[in-house]
Amino acid sequence: MSLLVVGTVAFDALETPFGKTDKIVGGSATFISYAAAYFGIETRLVAVIGDDFYMDTIEDLQNRNVKTEGLQIKAGEKSFFWKGRYHDNMNQRDTLITDLNVLADFDPIIPDSYQGAQYAMLGNLTPTVQQQVLERLQERPKLVAMDTMNFWMEHTPNELNDVLKLVDMLIINDEEARQLSEEYSLVKAAKKIQGMGPKYLIIKKGEHGALLFHGDHVFFAPALPLEEVFDPTGAGDTFAGGFMGYLAKTDDLSFDNMKRAIIYGSALASFCVEKFGTERLSELNETIIQERVQQFVDLVRFDVEITV
Amino acid sequence: MSLLVVGTVAFDALETPFGKTDKIVGGSATFISYAAAYFGIETRLVAVIGDDFYMDTIEDLQNRNVKTEGLQIKAGEKSFFWKGRYHDNMNQRDTLITDLNVLADFDPIIPDSYQGAQYAMLGNLTPTVQQQVLERLQERPKLVAMDTMNFWMEHTPNELNDVLKLVDMLIINDEEARQLSEEYSLVKAAKKIQGMGPKYLIIKKGEHGALLFHGDHVFFAPALPLEEVFDPTGAGDTFAGGFMGYLAKTDDLSFDNMKRAIIYGSALASFCVEKFGTERLSELNETIIQERVQQFVDLVRFDVEITV
Repeated sequence: MSLLVVGTVAFDALETPFGKTDKIVGGSATFISYAAAYFGIETRLVAVIGDDFYMDTIEDLQNRNVKTEGLQIKAGEKSFFWKGRYHDNMNQRDTLITDLNVLADFDPIIPDSYQGAQYAMLGNLTPTVQQQVLERLQERPKLVAMDTMNFWMEHTPNELNDVLKLVDMLIINDEEARQLSEEYSLVKAAKKIQGMGPKYLIIKKGEHGALLFHGDHVFFAPALPLEEVFDPTGAGDTFAGGFMGYLAKTDDLSFDNMKRAIIYGSALASFCVEKFGTERLSELNETIIQERVQQFVDLVRFDVEITV
Repeated sequence: MSLLVVGTVAFDALETPFGKTDKIVGGSATFISYAAAYFGIETRLVAVIGDDFYMDTIEDLQNRNVKTEGLQIKAGEKSFFWKGRYHDNMNQRDTLITDLNVLADFDPIIPDSYQGAQYAMLGNLTPTVQQQVLERLQERPKLVAMDTMNFWMEHTPNELNDVLKLVDMLIINDEEARQLSEEYSLVKAAKKIQGMGPKYLIIKKGEHGALLFHGDHVFFAPALPLEEVFDPTGAGDTFAGGFMGYLAKTDDLSFDNMKRAIIYGSALASFCVEKFGTERLSELNETIIQERVQQFVDLVRFDVEITV
């Protein structure tokens, strides 16, 4: 199976209570691709970078069966750059710098070799770019999931509403779900958002886990309680990448299989936060991932006899 | 089996986005007793009220096998009264009035008929009162759990530390765990708090569920995603009452059984918030509770094959 991934491939500079970084590799599509690649699928990357980007990262992704024909490299231009500072509790952050650079006029080109992808993950981008991607696919994937953020809800609500009608699944955090639905209760928010288009909704709650909604079905996956969150950047994208990678590998869209996919996504996200950027994510293997999944099983499994 | 319950039996007046109440029945020991009583155990209540308290509530508790020989009624005095206002998100509240009344000089008397209780739950009270109760028990219960709050951490830290050394389990919320341990990470907080005395620690995270820590074991129980939280008052005490009631009924202190107890405590707490005060809690039955427990099973159960 193959997974089309659209998003940013970019530089981040981070300040956390544990230290600072200069420009390191970041971007939604980068995290999604690293996570998805562990599932032995073909990942088809659509993104744009400047010629300042690190070629060894691109090669590393290629070695993980991430196709890069759809990765545009703009000569003489700079890659998207984000600089942020995390608060002591790591749950809040301030944006210090956002340089759109090549992202300012991103025209997502879908190479012929990418057509026919069975799964698609649209990382957080302008809704119009997300919609362009879908319009340029000759065959509709079995499942299209997308991410978005508060900025698009405030600045391009009509465009966002349009693309929401075209996707199967929305993956956003609790704050975004509340803003999009104008409901505080996540149960009410989920109903409203499902009425806006996506049949499936995942609400990520950071250290509090994630909820999957589909019709009247709800599944809750915990986050692993961690001693230390070193750098939360990219955890949400890693979650989405692990989720979609597992779905693409197993090619099973049952609710039960989506539960498993969320556990794998959560497991990968729990690694992501252990080091800066993509560092920890790039050094995993199947055994390490499976052991982490077992920790999730141990964390939530209980046996109770229901007598009614 | 029998459960000794010490705490407040009191009046609350509440303002929530959904409405206001005059004086209604509240108090930690009230919620704990209502929840524990569903497990068919004998509950032995130690508390103090004024002669203004509602006698039909006391009779209702007695009909649920809650013994009240240890419930002191002070003639000519008033019951403890708390008035609070919840914010729109229901996660924060302001205290408007606290009238200690009879609670100001509470001397917890343990009747002879209460001696030999196998389980004890010390609701949130002055740590010295909690310690007095333990000193007045001729036999140590199999498991002693206690609650506390920020106020005692700030005003009577030495007394709190003393009583912490005497109990088996502490049941507090995340904010309290962070304040007590001076650690933001709940995993680190749990280690520190276990070093202060309690071998078992439950950290309640409200709508985000609860964590049980014991040595290197961790269990996470979700909260049920609810359309509406009508009144969160007493939910934490109800959780503790359901937890201790289930433990006392099953008389099994294994970690696996504590997991089940947490699910039952969470189920009862999920009812508590559906109406004001103890109203919803007083009208349940075994079938309704078991159906709710089944919802928790459905919410978190997943099957995944671990291949390593």
